Amino acid sequence: MNLDAQWIVGFVDGEGCFHVGVNPHSDMATGFQVLPEFTVVQHRRDVKVLYALKAYFNCGVVRVNHGDRMAYRVRSIEHLADRICPFFLKHPLKTSKNIDFLKFRDVVLLCRAGAHLTNDGLDKIQKLAFQMNRGRTR
Amino acid sequence: MNLDAQWIVGFVDGEGCFHVGVNPHSDMATGFQVLPEFTVVQHRRDVKVLYALKAYFNCGVVRVNHGDRMAYRVRSIEHLADRICPFFLKHPLKTSKNIDFLKFRDVVLLCRAGAHLTNDGLDKIQKLAFQMNRGRTR
Repeated sequence: MNLDAQWIVGFVDGEGCFHVGVNPHSDMATGFQVLPEFTVVQHRRDVKVLYALKAYFNCGVVRVNHGDRMAYRVRSIEHLADRICPFFLKHPLKTSKNIDFLKFRDVVLLCRAGAHLTNDGLDKIQKLAFQMNRGRTR
Repeated sequence: MNLDAQWIVGFVDGEGCFHVGVNPHSDMATGFQVLPEFTVVQHRRDVKVLYALKAYFNCGVVRVNHGDRMAYRVRSIEHLADRICPFFLKHPLKTSKNIDFLKFRDVVLLCRAGAHLTNDGLDKIQKLAFQMNRGRTR
């Protein structure tokens, strides 16, 4: 299945999620682990579109999400920074999900620069993550 | 906001719904009214994409769906037959929603031919509607 860039934008406007988890983690100097994650969830019957996304972006995994629902998921900071974010910067989302994406991208770039390992950087990331989690995404 | 055809396909693969209501109605000779309906639902914050769809297809209405959720809705048989169905025939959906769409189109064409006013036609439509309502759409 060949995907058109604009089809991907429309599908992700509907079904995609840009999420930043900030979780307590005793191994980290700051006490927290930062987990940015891009996911698209679909019923198992349409898993082929998730594999088509994986092939298009040439990164990420397709896994069971919950019950009959499958997820395409990208967690690698390198892949998020080099493949996912540049795509959605070049082909902007048309819904307000784009506001979340831009904050997500800021977090990804901060993580790539190692800012999530310092207290100041973590503070910035937590503020961005908080702004993203105000009911704009489902 | 200008929409690309492939963006619409991707967005409707995610958020669109093709539904055929078959409801008891004492004014109809068959005892039933057939209501095919194309809808796209979004949170109020993204109502602008619903108006962009309305402008693109040059038909339908944008209305409150439920609470903070708005819907773009096309119910006119003429508009479904002449504008919505030809678009998705030319630009096929990539998910299994396309299976529902093809049955939906059959119902729309039967309705346009007046088949929903006869017992035989209604029987065909009810069979198609039943096949569509088996959990393929949300």
